Amino acid sequence: MRVLVLFAHPLADSFAAALHQTVVGALARAGHEVDDCDLYREGFDPVMKAAERRAHNTPNPELSLVESHVERLRAADAIVLCFPVWWYGMPAILKGYFDRVWINGVAFHLGTGGKIRAALHNIKKLGVVCTYGAPWWLIKLVLRDPVRGVIHTGIRGLCTRHVKSKFFALYSIEAKTSADTTRFLQKVEDGFARF
Amino acid sequence: MRVLVLFAHPLADSFAAALHQTVVGALARAGHEVDDCDLYREGFDPVMKAAERRAHNTPNPELSLVESHVERLRAADAIVLCFPVWWYGMPAILKGYFDRVWINGVAFHLGTGGKIRAALHNIKKLGVVCTYGAPWWLIKLVLRDPVRGVIHTGIRGLCTRHVKSKFFALYSIEAKTSADTTRFLQKVEDGFARF
Repeated sequence: MRVLVLFAHPLADSFAAALHQTVVGALARAGHEVDDCDLYREGFDPVMKAAERRAHNTPNPELSLVESHVERLRAADAIVLCFPVWWYGMPAILKGYFDRVWINGVAFHLGTGGKIRAALHNIKKLGVVCTYGAPWWLIKLVLRDPVRGVIHTGIRGLCTRHVKSKFFALYSIEAKTSADTTRFLQKVEDGFARF
Repeated sequence: MRVLVLFAHPLADSFAAALHQTVVGALARAGHEVDDCDLYREGFDPVMKAAERRAHNTPNPELSLVESHVERLRAADAIVLCFPVWWYGMPAILKGYFDRVWINGVAFHLGTGGKIRAALHNIKKLGVVCTYGAPWWLIKLVLRDPVRGVIHTGIRGLCTRHVKSKFFALYSIEAKTSADTTRFLQKVEDGFARF
């Protein structure tokens, strides 16, 4: 498969970067073709432009500034998102990737009355690797898992029917020992060796 | 009160901009001092920098690039967020405002084991005005309201104890008539006239 990996963290020596390297390495060793999109390194601008918003939800979306990202998305058979959860969501650089690239005419088709039809039939698998500062009970019981909800309902809903997904999350990262983080890296490695 | 209004939309002729003008006008007429922060117009960069991330969760956060925003937040008695919901969340420009400005040493104090204490005791009122493309049942029943969860738990939890809040949301905006949107504008006007 051709796998588009979307990574969002500014530091090359972070745990997020170690997770990213683990994902890319495991996928490559398993024989997949990896399109490694490091949004920070590529200097992605996540701020939707006025012309893009103006053309948003029209039959002629403004794609000129994100054309390469649209092509990479359309060329992919699978997607992996690798990011730290900041403020209960994706880092702004990744949030804005969805704002600007996953739009009408690319990720979905907008019909009358606001009804949408999925457009990413090429995406057959979805992987997510994320880390939280917050403990699991705050995320799951109090906040009812906003990141997972958006991914499972919003993102999966635009991929092919019966898209398969894998979700790896590490909570309370500030309180974890190096044995905990090593175990999580291994779990991610194993997961993507059999993606 | 001194009210910091945070607005995130690129188009001056959008419904979001009309809501923003309504909020600012109602607050000013009610005698409040408004610090109107139009993130697009101010060219806010929502991408957290490597040095900021490096100093994140340390006793010496890197604030030099967001200093004016920290000062404006500390000088405020109340906050109003005015934004369209894109991809089940804030536009990237507003998401990144929280990533970069609402950090340890500003919005909270990080203790041992990742426990946090609120630091924005100056914020006594919180207002939110947002619009959704999605219908209310998808947001509330399926996705369990990720935006409201983050605001009510995450943001409110860092303000003064017993902070008062007002939340105005318009769903299925693509399917609304002009009578619906006029009614919503009036509701927002009335709400902030008595903020």
